[in-house]
Amino acid sequence: MNDAVLANIKASITTIPDYPKAGIMFRDITSLIQNNQAFNQTIDCLVAQFQDQGYTKVLGAEARGFIFGAALAHRLNIGFIPARKPNKLPRETVSQEYQLEYGTDALHIHKDAVSSNDNVLVVDDLIATGGTIIAAINLVRQLGATVTDAAFVVALPDLGGEDKLTALNVKPFSLISFEGE
Amino acid sequence: MNDAVLANIKASITTIPDYPKAGIMFRDITSLIQNNQAFNQTIDCLVAQFQDQGYTKVLGAEARGFIFGAALAHRLNIGFIPARKPNKLPRETVSQEYQLEYGTDALHIHKDAVSSNDNVLVVDDLIATGGTIIAAINLVRQLGATVTDAAFVVALPDLGGEDKLTALNVKPFSLISFEGE
Repeated sequence: MNDAVLANIKASITTIPDYPKAGIMFRDITSLIQNNQAFNQTIDCLVAQFQDQGYTKVLGAEARGFIFGAALAHRLNIGFIPARKPNKLPRETVSQEYQLEYGTDALHIHKDAVSSNDNVLVVDDLIATGGTIIAAINLVRQLGATVTDAAFVVALPDLGGEDKLTALNVKPFSLISFEGE
Repeated sequence: MNDAVLANIKASITTIPDYPKAGIMFRDITSLIQNNQAFNQTIDCLVAQFQDQGYTKVLGAEARGFIFGAALAHRLNIGFIPARKPNKLPRETVSQEYQLEYGTDALHIHKDAVSSNDNVLVVDDLIATGGTIIAAINLVRQLGATVTDAAFVVALPDLGGEDKLTALNVKPFSLISFEGE
């Protein structure tokens, strides 16, 4: 991938200091996606990385993962699975809880969303501690499908999420990272 | 648009009787998007309808509108604006309330998401009574940008939302409809 393209994508992200609380540097991808050049470059880079590798579905985590995941699934010509918060999907689901700073949340997918024949690429906008995407991986595996790779636009390596994926035999890939910044 | 293609898209949608309550026929698009043929046909039909018409941004309503809106924005090579529920966007926003069956909800976009130079195509998965998409249209107009068209995969004409859009000088377009069914 072209360094100038990746630098342009990174520059399109807005950093908001002390949001949602003091000491957090929030990386806001809305300025990336409203910039047509940066958004196209992002999807093109993900397509280049993941095309022709036998994936049968893309899963995106609610809600920002839908934005990148759906565009990527369309470009890869495979189906898209939305992993949703509780009480959003109308048919029978499987669910996985995950830890938040205070309390827990959960992700759901429909029971027929994937099967043992599927090789699922899991996608989110950003990996921090990895809680959300690990729940998504567990959902897919609970239904007997395969997950070998996870794709992100942004990684925050200081928070350790990528190492947790590696420990689950899932290879993390991110276009850009903010480390020690 | 090809009738066989539209029939295939319609057949890919799952109808769930009496969800979320008695008497409602819920139209579930998750079975459409997990079907790569139907998902591709849907995006291709929307591209055919809206390409080369001077739109500068696509707005999608949280959360299912992100799935179709982001893929469409990518294909049209324009930016994508997510209209989000309260407390989800990190920078200064404008907001519009809308009525739910019980109580109200609101949508937000960042103040810099669109400007008076923008011609915005608003997108959601489905139009029923129109409350969500009217809030989205008002958000865009509040920032001085133009909205002339709204795109949906599914219309439920019995619920009157399309007429409300027409009254706001917004032309509704949907690929398929369920009427008296």
